[in-house]
This record gives sequence, structure tokens and C-alpha cells, in this order.
Amino acid sequence: MMLRGSARPSGTALTERQKIAWLRLIRSDNVGPATFRDLINHFGSAEAALESLPELSRRGGAGRAIRVASVADAERELEAAYRFGATFVGIGEPDYPPALKEIDGAPPLLAVKGDLKAATRPSLGIVGSRNASASGAKFAAMIAREAGAVGYVVTSGLARGIDTAAHRASVETGTIAALAGGLDRPYPPENVGLLQEITSGAGLAISEMPFGWEPRARDFPRRNRLIAGVSLGVAIIEAASRSGSLITARYAADFGRLVFAVPGSPLDPRCHGTNDLLKQGATVTTSPADVIEGLAPLSRDDLFSRLDMEEPPIEERRSAPAAATARTAPGDSDRARIVEALGPTPVEIDDVIRHTGLSASSVYLVLLELDLAGQLCRHGANLVSIVSGE
Amino acid sequence: MMLRGSARPSGTALTERQKIAWLRLIRSDNVGPATFRDLINHFGSAEAALESLPELSRRGGAGRAIRVASVADAERELEAAYRFGATFVGIGEPDYPPALKEIDGAPPLLAVKGDLKAATRPSLGIVGSRNASASGAKFAAMIAREAGAVGYVVTSGLARGIDTAAHRASVETGTIAALAGGLDRPYPPENVGLLQEITSGAGLAISEMPFGWEPRARDFPRRNRLIAGVSLGVAIIEAASRSGSLITARYAADFGRLVFAVPGSPLDPRCHGTNDLLKQGATVTTSPADVIEGLAPLSRDDLFSRLDMEEPPIEERRSAPAAATARTAPGDSDRARIVEALGPTPVEIDDVIRHTGLSASSVYLVLLELDLAGQLCRHGANLVSIVSGE
Repeated sequence: MMLRGSARPSGTALTERQKIAWLRLIRSDNVGPATFRDLINHFGSAEAALESLPELSRRGGAGRAIRVASVADAERELEAAYRFGATFVGIGEPDYPPALKEIDGAPPLLAVKGDLKAATRPSLGIVGSRNASASGAKFAAMIAREAGAVGYVVTSGLARGIDTAAHRASVETGTIAALAGGLDRPYPPENVGLLQEITSGAGLAISEMPFGWEPRARDFPRRNRLIAGVSLGVAIIEAASRSGSLITARYAADFGRLVFAVPGSPLDPRCHGTNDLLKQGATVTTSPADVIEGLAPLSRDDLFSRLDMEEPPIEERRSAPAAATARTAPGDSDRARIVEALGPTPVEIDDVIRHTGLSASSVYLVLLELDLAGQLCRHGANLVSIVSGE
Repeated sequence: MMLRGSARPSGTALTERQKIAWLRLIRSDNVGPATFRDLINHFGSAEAALESLPELSRRGGAGRAIRVASVADAERELEAAYRFGATFVGIGEPDYPPALKEIDGAPPLLAVKGDLKAATRPSLGIVGSRNASASGAKFAAMIAREAGAVGYVVTSGLARGIDTAAHRASVETGTIAALAGGLDRPYPPENVGLLQEITSGAGLAISEMPFGWEPRARDFPRRNRLIAGVSLGVAIIEAASRSGSLITARYAADFGRLVFAVPGSPLDPRCHGTNDLLKQGATVTTSPADVIEGLAPLSRDDLFSRLDMEEPPIEERRSAPAAATARTAPGDSDRARIVEALGPTPVEIDDVIRHTGLSASSVYLVLLELDLAGQLCRHGANLVSIVSGE
């Protein structure tokens, strides 16, 4: 079976002005992907949302005004990206990875550098130990090579060990390096040359972090989420207990993607994590064919293109509710009722709506205010809790 | 959890005279366990069946009379067993392994030597490569030791490698060595000392082959069947593709027993078989706890004793149909119709009954005749085919 080189392009490009507004919005304080999407839902566009941000966060109880990224900030970042040979792809745009679009809290803007065709090809994630065994690295390369040969782009995290082996074996056929920091801050240093090979060939570097962002330990789980989100399946070659690769596997499972795990000796700590994945139902993987056959049903043209059907860009699609929101702006007593309905234990937003008897749009708006004020914690798509004072 | 030391004894002992008759019947030409059981079904006792054997095989078309073991033959084997410190346990007797009783074609008589209490304790089979790796042997010993500590008897095949490690680690707590030849013909020679340790302690040697039988390559699958039949579950530690351990695993799965497989590197041929078992749904086993927890539901007193409930000995239980059979002995034309209904492709006995319109007892009797004449091939419990001329 030979896969198509790339998915049918679809979606509508953002204007340069929209891109600036999107970048400002996602770079503003307390705005993550979920908040971003809800803001667009309520205000119809990033520009309209930006205007309301200070007022919203004040109503939500922010001690001081949240920082809203300025036009100058956004232009500076965009400028830096262009100088670096990179750009940003918005979630409604044709070059946005189709599988990533499907996940909860997909990044609205992805910084990308390299061959954009790689972004829309079906992807296999390959991850594993940084201190891989020789046979682990060999096996990762085998899978990457054979998956590349049948048309998959191989996505990994540019780390030492398994990641490096997977990227190297797929430089020719196309590979995506997901970074934990800004595109201009690759890690580890010894893989800067490899990253250059990747982005100057058929591959791509991607990041959801701002340019110039130095990756910290806590940014890596987010990078792992990106690997899982971009990919139809993830192969974990070697992984110790509680390692980052298991986080990637968890995300993949949560996103409904396939998880392939390579078995290994119970007496080798590098295999504890992968063996545990097998116990949890991951696909036993002892040859590249196991991966390729497992992915085949997901990668057929008809199914893969389902992920990437024509749809209006996010701003148009979401404009209708905005007007409604304006008409039903909640008062202070409504706000108090909603806050009272929340607690430190995550609760479903639908339950908050039922419990308070308020309109859905009022509840969403108050939640947005709390969110922007740093008072709300989001747990997945529909669960929220109040940030407990500390 | 600590298991009971042994199952509640049940069943009725065979008289010495019955034991001689059983031994004669099972050692006669063309009488395997299934034929043995059908003969007892039809004739009510081994003695009655023995009288009819020559006539049955003649009617079935045997070119020359089949050899029926004489009383002297049986007495000689029994004598040899006793001299050797061994004895025979019949399928209805209290010391017969309760799990083995449940399988299709369970051996009617088992030659045993050692501590008979081991025969009725819940058993875990442990098998694997003869050329085991050091870590494989270590892991086998770990499982054997911990399973022994909670009350399991460990059953294996006395082979080099994994089997040896499993037996050695459970000599103190009790281990069963299933042999491919007679009890007096252990293999391999270097494990004769180990076998002596086993049978002089809390362990047992078992065999379904005659005393003095030198094991040939083709006897080993039968030995593997015994290991699986005796055990509630079988752990396969290391196994190459197409190895004997996989035969044990197949039998265990067929018997509805648990199959535990230890994962290993896809690049180590000793792990190909075990990894394949994992792909087929065997339990991923990375610690003794995986085995012990897996077996726990099968080993609780109430469940295990279900395998071993009070029941009349096989000869009494089966005596009623014998009279009926005598009344409906089939004629030559019936025999011809049955033979016509059979072919080289296995067919269900029930279909033969329906197809010919003859009574079940007539059909079973003709099948017995063909069987004893070496004309019938049995495939599992209910499928038969005619032996094609060659």
C-alpha cells in the first residue's frame, strides 16, 4: 500500500491582519487554546475578543489587569519568524495538520519551519528513551524507514536516543520535529544540525510556543501532546516507568490514536514502561509491519480525508453566537450564582448551566471572565473547577 | 492469598483387578484415551471391552488381529512400576490431577512417582527455551519461587533451560515433572539427579507412557499436553518461533487455561514465540504477581473444587449405555452406510448419526470398530475422518 503524498488541502487562509490578532490573543495572559476558542465563540473574531479582554478579566476578579499582547508584540514575533524562515499556520488554514485539528485544545496557531507539505501528510509518531539501547535505536530506525517508505511522515521530539534514531531514518522521506520551546530554541544542542537537515529537506519543525521561548522541563509534556496530536498512531520503542514517552502514549490514547509498544525484557528498566503499555492494551509491536498494518485502516484516502473535510474558518463559523452573547450579558448576581456553583472539584459546564438555570451563553461568558482572571481551571473539554486560593 | 495445600480428595479407588484391566486396555493396539473412554461407554467396564476387542477390530476391517495386552503384560508393567517406587492413578481416582480430568482425551491412567499430594494441588505450568538466556532462567525461577510460596505446585517438562530453572526453584514447595517417555526413562540425562530430588521431596514425576518407553521426538508434544492439562495456567518465559513451548501454550489455550507470556526484545529470536503469544492475547507477564493475580480467580477454593467434585468412578457411571448397545448391535449394511458417510475430511459424529439415520449407539460402536482396526482418525472430541489408504 502506498499512501497519498499529502491530504487534499482545505480551509481558508487567515489574512495578515487576522494572523496578528490571533497571535496577540493566544500570547495574552491566561489565554490557552480552550479559552481562545471560547473567546472566538463569544466574540466572533480575535479582534473583538481582544477589545473585551481587560474588561472580562476585571469582571472575573483579576487583582490587576491581565497583560494583553500588543500589535507591536505580535508584529515583532511574526517578523522574527519570517526572518528565521518560519511562519504560523492557523487551525482553519489548509496547511494545519489535519489530525491535530481534531484534538481538544488544539493550538490555534502553530509555528512551523520547513516543507509545509509534511504538515498534512499522515503521521506516525515514534518516541522512546533518551538513553536507548543499541537495539532499541536500531528498531526505531527500522520502523521509521519502513513507515517513511510507504508514505508516512515520522513525528518525534528531537530528543536523544530513540527520537534521534527515528528522525535520522526518515530525513529523506519526511519527518516532523515537535519542539518544547520556540522554533529558534531547539533542544538538545547536539541535535541542532539534525534539525537543520530536517527543515531544509522534506521535513518540518513545529512548536506552539512563542519565538525565543527557552524550553523548561514543564514544557515537554506539551511537546509530547503535540506529537500525539499530529499523529494517527504513536510507536513507543523503549520507555522507563514514569517517562515522557508514556505521557505521549497517554495523550495518543486520549485522542483515540493507536498506541504501538515494543515488548522487552522485564528485567530491563528501559522496557518497564512499554511492557506496562502492553498490559493496558497497546498493540504488541515486533516489526514495522505491525505498525503499518495497524495504521492502514486509518490512512486510507477516504478515512484520512474525513479528518480534513472542507469547513469554514473558525472565525466565520463562530460568529453567530457572538451577537446572542451581547444580548444576554450576565449581571453581577448571575456571576455570583455561577461562582457559587463552582468548587475545587471539576464539574461539567452543562451541570453549571442546569444548576444555575442561566443561559448557556451567560455561563460561558462568566467562565471566560474567570478564566482570563486566572480563577478558572479547565480539565479537558467540558470540566472546570475554581482555582483554590493559596 | 494462601492456597489450600491440596484439593479435597474425591473419587473412588480402582480395585487391583480393575487397574490390571485398565492397563491392558490402554496398552492395547489402537486404543488411545478417546477410544478407551468410548469402549468403557459401550461395554461398561474395561474387562468387558477387552473381551470384545479382537472381534471389534476384525469387524472394523483390520488386516490382522490387533495386539491386545495380556494380563501378564499388565502385571509385568505394574510390577515394574511398584519396584521403581511408582504407581498408576486412574482418571476416577482421588489422586488424579483434577484439572487434567477436565480435558478432552485425558489419559485414563497416569504413571506417578513421588508425593501424591502434589497431584491434586493447583498447578502452574512454567515452560520455555532449552537454550534460555540467563535473565530468562532467572525470571522463570522468580515466578516458580513466588508461585510456590503461595501454594501452587509448579509443573514443567524437565528439559534444559527454563524447565530446569522452574523445577529447581520449586523443589522445596513442590513441582511436577511431566515426562515424554516412561517414568524410568527420564530425559535429558543431566536432569536425572534433579528428578530424584523432585520425587524424593514434595514433588512428583508423571507420564502417560508405558514403563521402559524410550522417548522419541514425537512423544514430546504429548508431554507438553500433559503439562497444560495438569495446570490452571501456563507461563511461557522464552520461546522461539515453532518451539515446543508454543505447543504447550496452544494446548493450554485449547483447554481454556490461562496463558502467560513474558515479553522480550523483537531482535532476540528466543522472544519471537512469546511475543507472538502476546499478539494472540496471552497475558503480558513482567512479574510473578502478574501470574499469581491472573490465577487467583481460578484457584479460590470454591472454584477449584468445582473441578474435583464428587462423581462416580468412570466404570459405574458408564454402565447403563452398555446394555443398550448390546441390544442394537449394527449389522453389516449399517456398517457400510456409516463407512460411506465418512471421508478423509473430518466430520462431526452427530452429522454421521443424522446422515445415516442409525442409532447413536450403533454409530459409536462402528466408529469404535474402525478405530480399533486403525481405520479411524479422531480430531478432538467429536470429529472423525477415515484413514486414507497409503
